[in-house]
Amino acid sequence: MVGKALLELLSIPSISTLQKHKKDINKAASFLAEYMKKIGLEHVKVMATGGHPVVYADWLHAKGKPTVLIYGHYDVQPPDPLDEWESPPFSPTIRKGNIYARGAADNKCQLFIHLKSAEILLKSQKRLPVNVKFLIEGEEEIGSLNLEHFIGLNKKRLKADFALISDTGSPAPHKPTIIYGLRGLLYTQISVQTAKHDLHSGSYGGRAENPVHILAKVITQLQDGQKITIPGFYDDVASPEKSSFKTRPSLDVNGIWGGFTGEGAKTIIPAKASAKISMRLVPHQEPSKIAKIFESYLQKITPDTATLSFQAYSMARPVLVDCNTTYMQKAKEAVKEVFGVRPRFSRTGGTIPVVEIISRVLFLQSILLGFGLDSDNIHAPNEKFSLKMFQKGIQTSTKFLEKLASLK
Amino acid sequence: MVGKALLELLSIPSISTLQKHKKDINKAASFLAEYMKKIGLEHVKVMATGGHPVVYADWLHAKGKPTVLIYGHYDVQPPDPLDEWESPPFSPTIRKGNIYARGAADNKCQLFIHLKSAEILLKSQKRLPVNVKFLIEGEEEIGSLNLEHFIGLNKKRLKADFALISDTGSPAPHKPTIIYGLRGLLYTQISVQTAKHDLHSGSYGGRAENPVHILAKVITQLQDGQKITIPGFYDDVASPEKSSFKTRPSLDVNGIWGGFTGEGAKTIIPAKASAKISMRLVPHQEPSKIAKIFESYLQKITPDTATLSFQAYSMARPVLVDCNTTYMQKAKEAVKEVFGVRPRFSRTGGTIPVVEIISRVLFLQSILLGFGLDSDNIHAPNEKFSLKMFQKGIQTSTKFLEKLASLK
Repeated sequence: MVGKALLELLSIPSISTLQKHKKDINKAASFLAEYMKKIGLEHVKVMATGGHPVVYADWLHAKGKPTVLIYGHYDVQPPDPLDEWESPPFSPTIRKGNIYARGAADNKCQLFIHLKSAEILLKSQKRLPVNVKFLIEGEEEIGSLNLEHFIGLNKKRLKADFALISDTGSPAPHKPTIIYGLRGLLYTQISVQTAKHDLHSGSYGGRAENPVHILAKVITQLQDGQKITIPGFYDDVASPEKSSFKTRPSLDVNGIWGGFTGEGAKTIIPAKASAKISMRLVPHQEPSKIAKIFESYLQKITPDTATLSFQAYSMARPVLVDCNTTYMQKAKEAVKEVFGVRPRFSRTGGTIPVVEIISRVLFLQSILLGFGLDSDNIHAPNEKFSLKMFQKGIQTSTKFLEKLASLK
Repeated sequence: MVGKALLELLSIPSISTLQKHKKDINKAASFLAEYMKKIGLEHVKVMATGGHPVVYADWLHAKGKPTVLIYGHYDVQPPDPLDEWESPPFSPTIRKGNIYARGAADNKCQLFIHLKSAEILLKSQKRLPVNVKFLIEGEEEIGSLNLEHFIGLNKKRLKADFALISDTGSPAPHKPTIIYGLRGLLYTQISVQTAKHDLHSGSYGGRAENPVHILAKVITQLQDGQKITIPGFYDDVASPEKSSFKTRPSLDVNGIWGGFTGEGAKTIIPAKASAKISMRLVPHQEPSKIAKIFESYLQKITPDTATLSFQAYSMARPVLVDCNTTYMQKAKEAVKEVFGVRPRFSRTGGTIPVVEIISRVLFLQSILLGFGLDSDNIHAPNEKFSLKMFQKGIQTSTKFLEKLASLK
């Protein structure tokens, strides 16, 4: 059922955050474009952006019918820690009804569901029931850095009635879920430097400032329990009583490093210590405003004996989706027919930058109908995708496109 | 002046803490043994220990004269961060009267001073003025892990009147310094684990414990300013009024790591975070006792939702040296004649485990007469040794051995 093409796509280490995988990013984009041409999609293009390319394709011969913009991303998270994978992350392996690979659930199998659906329809009926545009980007895992600019330049090309995105999941195979709320993201990197180079801890211990101690103290001053203590952080958050969006913002250190991290002992006082710190934001927090108050708070709590450097490099606004469109009604019906139950509606703590961008730039509502499972280990070792969900996903996609044809 | 042999020794990356350099460790030991044979030392042996080998050699034909045990170490610290070196760490390079290489000051040039002194005397006079034994180890930079056991097994072989150690330095070339107090060392590694694998920070941010936050909090609870807050830590420290040893103990995080540390963004909550934490101890703190109270304090301040693992793997007791021996008198005279000034007497914050071991196991006092300079960048990038100090060191060593001949 998992064809050769999907296996090949899963084998490409298209890790967007690592420059050394730039070639693999381009390979994944070209591979997708070739595949799209092969199955009969038109105007297939690998389009340059300021960063990694976007793959575009369409099929626009359903005159008078709705146009669906289907979004996906071919980039993946880094696979580390490598030694925790049971099979290599870029050697897709089927075990017990799942396919294991980095990017299986997030997002290669999910974007492939809609390609498969188009392929099946084009093969059997020589046409699609509605107009379809595919927008497959390569920077989702790094915050869709260049997507807003790209969409702004291609408004006409991307014109549609709504967007369909399968980049989410459900708690279990019998509980299909449509997501209607996403958190925003602010991703930063900070460094604390106290000396030009590492110092001998015997000669300087007790005399020289230690940047790890300072960084540790800075980190403890960012939260009090789960409450984030950056002044002004909650100013724009709707109070739980007033908000229909009950997910709270969160802050996490995603990584930390400094000094000697090899095996054994090296008796130094590090010159520098760094951390990656990100925040998940809720309506109506503005990432660039939060970045500013975060940086000035960091500067305030860093002692004068240390130099703090700050970089904010990935931002996305939080978003809420309209659940009452006629398109959403058709999605619910398709899910009900394939899964035998009505979809649940849920918010998630995750972030999909495109949803907010297209709502603002293209005035498009999104339908977040994903086929992943909470157990899929996305962003973690042994990421997988259920073959059963893959099959049901294709059926749902096909049914949904067919149902949409009745709308105009 | 710096011969081919010393250049070759400086070219060997004999990094004791990294297993992948085991071959280089053995190469440095063999190289030294060959050189010792060549200059006329006797009973030259590369002797196995539980870890890296010890190189032994002697010359024992000065009947009725004192016996000096000369100690040095051929192992070096790791050279990272590599990109801060102006010339490669294992390509010794002479610039402006200094030789630059990892291990130049600590301890290869310094141990070579005494080999050169023996070589010159054996060449010109066909004999040494006193009996000399060389003990050159390969584990000083990792806390001389196997040295106590080795010395215990070789008490007879190592019998001597006192030990001479050049592994320290002075603030300036015209301020020769004898060290009479050393701090002890406790080196540990701790890890905080909260999950089996990394989690998606969108789905879990605000719900799952973050081990970096916990580790940061643990680190901030180890000190209040410079005061170490581990309960019982100061119990055995002599009060400043009563102590002749005014150096204070210190605690430093030597390295920290956890989660994603590559370029760009990876939106995870790490499963685990780790740190290397070491303490410099003063008389009469016992490292194994401090290790115990440190571990139980760590367990106490780690929340139940996390698992803390603790490893103590390098320990050395603090030590004070007797400054009033007749041997010390001769050392002072030799320094005065070569440098034109009397040596200063000073304590240092560093640790040389052998000093305490031989005082306890062999009942030997040490003379810590080193020729490094505070500006030598030991344990740091661009480590160097002054060629002028190298020359004066050889002269001082020769004079010292000659003066000792008058003592028995």
